[in-house]
Amino acid sequence: MRMFDIIDKKRHGLALTEEEIAYFVKGVTCGEIPDYQTSALLMAICFKGMTEQETAELTLAMAGSGEEMDLSHLRGIKVDKHSTGGIGDKTTLILGPLMAACHLPVVKMSGRGLGLTGGTIDKLEAIPGLSCALSMEDFFRQVEELGVAVASQTASLAPCDKKLYALRDTTATVDCIPLIASSIMSKKLASGSDAIILDVKYGSGAFMKTKEEAEELAEIMVSIGEHCGRRMDYVISDMDQPLGQAVGNAIEVNEAVLALKGEAPEDLMDVVYQLGAKMLVAGEIVKTEKEAYPLMKEHIQDGSALAKFREMIKRQGGDPSFMDTKELLPLGPFSEEICAEQAGIVTKVCADGIGHTALVLGAGRETKDEAIDPGSGVFVCKKVGDPVQKGDVLARIYSGSRELVESAKKECYQAFVIE
Amino acid sequence: MRMFDIIDKKRHGLALTEEEIAYFVKGVTCGEIPDYQTSALLMAICFKGMTEQETAELTLAMAGSGEEMDLSHLRGIKVDKHSTGGIGDKTTLILGPLMAACHLPVVKMSGRGLGLTGGTIDKLEAIPGLSCALSMEDFFRQVEELGVAVASQTASLAPCDKKLYALRDTTATVDCIPLIASSIMSKKLASGSDAIILDVKYGSGAFMKTKEEAEELAEIMVSIGEHCGRRMDYVISDMDQPLGQAVGNAIEVNEAVLALKGEAPEDLMDVVYQLGAKMLVAGEIVKTEKEAYPLMKEHIQDGSALAKFREMIKRQGGDPSFMDTKELLPLGPFSEEICAEQAGIVTKVCADGIGHTALVLGAGRETKDEAIDPGSGVFVCKKVGDPVQKGDVLARIYSGSRELVESAKKECYQAFVIE
Repeated sequence: MRMFDIIDKKRHGLALTEEEIAYFVKGVTCGEIPDYQTSALLMAICFKGMTEQETAELTLAMAGSGEEMDLSHLRGIKVDKHSTGGIGDKTTLILGPLMAACHLPVVKMSGRGLGLTGGTIDKLEAIPGLSCALSMEDFFRQVEELGVAVASQTASLAPCDKKLYALRDTTATVDCIPLIASSIMSKKLASGSDAIILDVKYGSGAFMKTKEEAEELAEIMVSIGEHCGRRMDYVISDMDQPLGQAVGNAIEVNEAVLALKGEAPEDLMDVVYQLGAKMLVAGEIVKTEKEAYPLMKEHIQDGSALAKFREMIKRQGGDPSFMDTKELLPLGPFSEEICAEQAGIVTKVCADGIGHTALVLGAGRETKDEAIDPGSGVFVCKKVGDPVQKGDVLARIYSGSRELVESAKKECYQAFVIE
Repeated sequence: MRMFDIIDKKRHGLALTEEEIAYFVKGVTCGEIPDYQTSALLMAICFKGMTEQETAELTLAMAGSGEEMDLSHLRGIKVDKHSTGGIGDKTTLILGPLMAACHLPVVKMSGRGLGLTGGTIDKLEAIPGLSCALSMEDFFRQVEELGVAVASQTASLAPCDKKLYALRDTTATVDCIPLIASSIMSKKLASGSDAIILDVKYGSGAFMKTKEEAEELAEIMVSIGEHCGRRMDYVISDMDQPLGQAVGNAIEVNEAVLALKGEAPEDLMDVVYQLGAKMLVAGEIVKTEKEAYPLMKEHIQDGSALAKFREMIKRQGGDPSFMDTKELLPLGPFSEEICAEQAGIVTKVCADGIGHTALVLGAGRETKDEAIDPGSGVFVCKKVGDPVQKGDVLARIYSGSRELVESAKKECYQAFVIE
């Protein structure tokens, strides 16, 4: 078998066989296939696609390219949740403790972000002292004893996907449904949960620009997961404007704390509750999604979800005392208010524009070795449908650098459309 | 400027600017752009194409990526000839001496083959002692004194194309009109001739499968050349069956010698004369193509073209004494006759099949470090339209290895269709 023939076949729109996909994944994983051949194949896949069969085979081969976690020794049905990523998406920070409070064990392996804002791990590590670099032993013990742990993905989880992702990220081949689906699902399958609930986003701040594309991606991932015996369900959610009000790292942790105190914006809680309901059904904590809602609200009202988050922070080495202050985690120290220059109704808050503002402020990274400034970010004060007067604050931006605040102002303002 | 954005732009079908193309060519040449980004862009170009403007800019940037030869100190109009490559194409071996005999200076830089059979340099070096590794000084002196010299391309000629070609060759991105056009024309422009006559082939043994594609490729190359002030013309020629009867290296030299003696097959001489006529017009040796034919035939009949070849071989260190023997250059030593298993009319001699047979016999190379067996090859005895009786010899195959003769027999036979 030759990689040349595999590329040529895909270039001409033919489906690859299971053997060809296995050859490719093995060759990438062990480094025998040079990157320039891999990236040529990835680009050809962007143009010619993959059948459902090919996508499933690529996913399974990638899941099998490294360590596959065995969670069978943990009690209960282990439910994982995955979001395709969006601006201001802090649902994992809220759902982890909330599900644990509802007695659903959450075994969450998560990634750092390469993009506009940090990933879940970056956000959590904005909490002083907290580490997500848990040993497997500590990770499992914490799940057993507390019901929730969030650890950073080990390099040994789907290493082929890691290599492919790094290449896709530098060769403009990220937004391709079969590649996205196989990348996500390979890590989810290797992580060993019994059920996987997907949050597939669409809109200006997401990879999928339309609801139809998001549904297509969701359906493919569900079919792959079910093919492998996992319980699957999904939520399609809007990412045209940021989710909630906070975009960044520390600032999103703060919003998650507010959510667990029952004080978060409705749009954020809608997505949290939708996902939570499906997780609780998949985990057989409740029979129907309808039953799940009062249960979740109860655990927020009685403080038990917040208590789980506090305990999780402590067990992972962090100091949760910030949760008791009014300001929560510190932001900035430099900040600026972005104000409306005219009166009207906000008709658009471009998620992409807000995300890019956060990146400029220091909240994201463009290359994997860049450091993140945890206190930087955007707080969105006005959202779509809100009436504004001239001079009203549309957003507050924060950064560790006065220059970055200056250079981000214009883009932040331009993310708002007032009519 | 970022390579990522250039790839992304092309992936989405947008035309690249002159600055973007210059950035890409410079980055590839100096090694700053990693191969995996380059190959992703090449694949995107295969799918999305390039405008004529982009193709011209890519060509010029590649021509300028290394040394550009200055031939202005040589007398006369320097005419170059380029074939897009085919099975049994030995026209350069014939046209070089023939044009020199007609007083048209031929300054020919040529390549080694990566493919089914060797390139012009490989064929010439099948002559004992002959070398095409001429210093520029010797090369120019030979052109001045003899009127013809064939040297192997230096690595400093269009080095960007060299790198791109190597990548295309391993990533299934060779057959793409703008990439083929810019690759060929960048080397031709850097070689410094005043006029370039193209032989663009189509059919089973060529990159272009149809006459229309061949014309499209020819037109683009002509427009690039004219844009750079070169006189341009082209011939479109059929490559469905091999050109002439000989396919290999020494065996093609032998056929070239026969051609210069006036004893070559008509199909081969048709292409030679068509190209030669256009070369002589471009070089202002004659006013019309019609005048060129008797001139060329005269120089073959009076032996002056053959004498030029003899002199060229001598000056490049070779021993031309083989030209006076009946057998010419030795072939084999192992050989076999491929015979018809039924009577009928030959309706097809698949050029690709004969070419691949030659490769199997040892006449070509698959990777650039492989050695070529000069005495191996195929002699095609029956061509399309020929009647055959059962048992008639269709072809003779030659190799330095008995095993290779055995393993090539079947493919050679299958190249013939008798109906």
